[in-house]
Amino acid sequence: MVYPSASRSVTLRLKFKNKIGMLGQITSAIGGAGGDIGAIDIVSVDRGGITRDITVSTRDEAHTARIVEAVKRIPGVEVVHLSDRTFLLHLGGKIEIANRIPIKTRDDLSRVYTPGVAQVCRAIQEDKGKAFALTIKKNSVAVVTDGSAVLGLGNIGPEAALPVMEGKAMLFKEFAGIDAYPICLATQDPDEIVETVQRIATGFGGINLEDISSPRCFEIERRLKKTLDIPVFHDDQHGTAVVVLAALLNAVRIVKKKREDLKVVVNGVGAAGTAIIDMLLSSGVKRIIGCDRDGILCAGRRVEMNPVMRRYAKRTNPERVKGKLEDALVGADVFIGVSVAGILHAAAVKKMARDPIVFALANPSPEIMPEETEGIVRIMATGRSDYPNQINNVLAFPGIFRGALDVRASEINDAMNLAAAEAIASVIRKDELSEDYIVPGVFNRKVAKVVAQAVSKAATETGVARREKKITNNQE
Amino acid sequence: MVYPSASRSVTLRLKFKNKIGMLGQITSAIGGAGGDIGAIDIVSVDRGGITRDITVSTRDEAHTARIVEAVKRIPGVEVVHLSDRTFLLHLGGKIEIANRIPIKTRDDLSRVYTPGVAQVCRAIQEDKGKAFALTIKKNSVAVVTDGSAVLGLGNIGPEAALPVMEGKAMLFKEFAGIDAYPICLATQDPDEIVETVQRIATGFGGINLEDISSPRCFEIERRLKKTLDIPVFHDDQHGTAVVVLAALLNAVRIVKKKREDLKVVVNGVGAAGTAIIDMLLSSGVKRIIGCDRDGILCAGRRVEMNPVMRRYAKRTNPERVKGKLEDALVGADVFIGVSVAGILHAAAVKKMARDPIVFALANPSPEIMPEETEGIVRIMATGRSDYPNQINNVLAFPGIFRGALDVRASEINDAMNLAAAEAIASVIRKDELSEDYIVPGVFNRKVAKVVAQAVSKAATETGVARREKKITNNQE
Repeated sequence: MVYPSASRSVTLRLKFKNKIGMLGQITSAIGGAGGDIGAIDIVSVDRGGITRDITVSTRDEAHTARIVEAVKRIPGVEVVHLSDRTFLLHLGGKIEIANRIPIKTRDDLSRVYTPGVAQVCRAIQEDKGKAFALTIKKNSVAVVTDGSAVLGLGNIGPEAALPVMEGKAMLFKEFAGIDAYPICLATQDPDEIVETVQRIATGFGGINLEDISSPRCFEIERRLKKTLDIPVFHDDQHGTAVVVLAALLNAVRIVKKKREDLKVVVNGVGAAGTAIIDMLLSSGVKRIIGCDRDGILCAGRRVEMNPVMRRYAKRTNPERVKGKLEDALVGADVFIGVSVAGILHAAAVKKMARDPIVFALANPSPEIMPEETEGIVRIMATGRSDYPNQINNVLAFPGIFRGALDVRASEINDAMNLAAAEAIASVIRKDELSEDYIVPGVFNRKVAKVVAQAVSKAATETGVARREKKITNNQE
Repeated sequence: MVYPSASRSVTLRLKFKNKIGMLGQITSAIGGAGGDIGAIDIVSVDRGGITRDITVSTRDEAHTARIVEAVKRIPGVEVVHLSDRTFLLHLGGKIEIANRIPIKTRDDLSRVYTPGVAQVCRAIQEDKGKAFALTIKKNSVAVVTDGSAVLGLGNIGPEAALPVMEGKAMLFKEFAGIDAYPICLATQDPDEIVETVQRIATGFGGINLEDISSPRCFEIERRLKKTLDIPVFHDDQHGTAVVVLAALLNAVRIVKKKREDLKVVVNGVGAAGTAIIDMLLSSGVKRIIGCDRDGILCAGRRVEMNPVMRRYAKRTNPERVKGKLEDALVGADVFIGVSVAGILHAAAVKKMARDPIVFALANPSPEIMPEETEGIVRIMATGRSDYPNQINNVLAFPGIFRGALDVRASEINDAMNLAAAEAIASVIRKDELSEDYIVPGVFNRKVAKVVAQAVSKAATETGVARREKKITNNQE
């Protein structure tokens, strides 16, 4: 069942005779059709009648159409206009450029542009490192996509990916004060993506790769990390892995198990799945089994594996278990799904070890619905905001980049990601920790701050920081 | 003589005994060393003395050093700190990203990001044109450079060019409400520049090429114009040409000559010079002579010409005049210099026709100083703000892009540039027009508006507009 959602909110502008009972008929019709009424405003009143705006949350476009039909059937009601609030919000884009300094006088102009700017150019020409202090490079991240794996929408191309990249840029600003700019590439060729990002990187302090499909994303990230001297971070991989590890660290505290004893099944070995496996291995988890649609990854499996899968088959599954997902789950402590809706069944969950931990992260519908796990799972997390324990990347990437930029890190390494996961987990105090509260909420403003501090520290300790951490203007 | 300038403004923090006469000694020392004193502030007063910030405009770094020395020589004065206002302004960059919509609640988040954003993505996937309405593409311009010909600084590279590109982005915002973002390319290869811009163009509504050296800039612009369906504009070429034509239109009105009878000498046949020649030809000027450092461009000239020069030798100089700049100037009505300081001499100017018009646009020092032309030139213009008639591109590019974006123009064509020039000229009323007032001031806010309207109209008339002009939120 999908509930009406504010993300699908429409405003109906209705004109009708201003007589007793009319508004009641209208709201009844909307409610009867399953619409969730929000604000009701008066637009104008005249002799011809009254015009009102009624905002309604609906389930989807078809649902909206049914509500409009129900209203139209009331005699004397005219639907003047239907506007979708989400579309209205997007008109003209969601971000803009702001000047940090006014240009109101000739003196202003002579300092921010010619002739004054020439001194600043010469200073950078003599020492390129000064670009980190004297230009936007200090606080800028490019959000780069080729539109090949956008949300759950798939390969929708760079134009259609732009609203997501703008949204991502907004999150960077809102949660970490970072100036992120969307770059949507009109190519899906890895070589071309790599060389394009290399050529535009000069003006940025970091590169956030976004929604690039697997396995191309691995090569693209690897080559960019190798050649650029600024952090390169594929959020779909590492952002997800960091938040999953954070949640797992807290979940394991609740069930009182040791990390090194855990048996973890990771279902889905794409961008997120491989990064989760890497991160779990780095954090000391030893018994990991990877599964894809053809079952357990295992050296010598009958169904063919691509080179990435073969590598992960080697890195994981030390007991060389073969079979299906159900076989992997026997005695497992943790299930982590980054795959597709509904592929996990209660029967398989029941074969897990005591106090099962299930992270069903497929979006928008998880591998198993929380309702089905009641009584058989101890700790449940999803990617959704309408259940407890939402695994959301926004807990990780803003703080990670903030921490990296603050110390001018040349890269984001494993130690920094591990530090970020531990920092996210630490936001929940021991006495707050519970089965329904293993990760902080997305609007918890403490998260980005503690993550940034931990990441800066880890960068310094691992020798990738290029300056000491100072309080910057960009960070409150 | 270079005068102290606000673009070279330093703040001296001085600590001294708070006794009568000290401040007078200090200001006298600064004034005596040629410094121009601005604000004087008190920072703190304690038993040890008083600390003051004194802001001083200076000529250059050496001059600043002399002023500091003069102050240090006063017994009992300690120079605590010296800060350069222009550098201070540049710390952390001059532009930032701002969210146009708040993200304070889950509902906000669900509309600007997942899941609500998916509807917007799908709408664009079905109709790519919708990206112009529903994303930043509507109002965004990439300011692209390779750092090969930055201001008068030459080939300083992409890092050092960034402060200029940020300044340009500020001007786009301040004068036309356009969201421009700097892209500094780590390549100077024309093929690589072209393909990189092609790949990142998706998210932009226009491309402003900036400070790319000639003759590479011609090929780069031509190929990008041919392959992209958004405006591509090399400001160093066309922006300059538009403002030069605007100034010339008004100058010719004053001297009461006909455009088609004019004899115009253009000295310097690089990016700006060739564009000026093209624009003059488009506007109906027939007798144009181009000159470079080796003299008049003429088919069969002894000193070799590159292919661009050969083309312009053919397009101009119908009377096949040969010789030096001085020879070209005999009987000329107009001199337009986009070359180097000091190459025009009074003796040559005296050979021009009655009421000579001299645009000496080399920066920062013109081809001939206005002081040397007194009495022999009727109308004089330079690129400088400290003389009348400043030819400044900021009069053109904000309005041109505003006009193009407002009607979703697929390109900026000759007709649009001509319309822009006429619009700039028209801002000065007939009764206002004088030898010292042939172009509006850079802070005249009317300019961008009338230019935008004229450019939108010309785009519609020439069939390159993809929608009708409406008042947008971005335009006041």
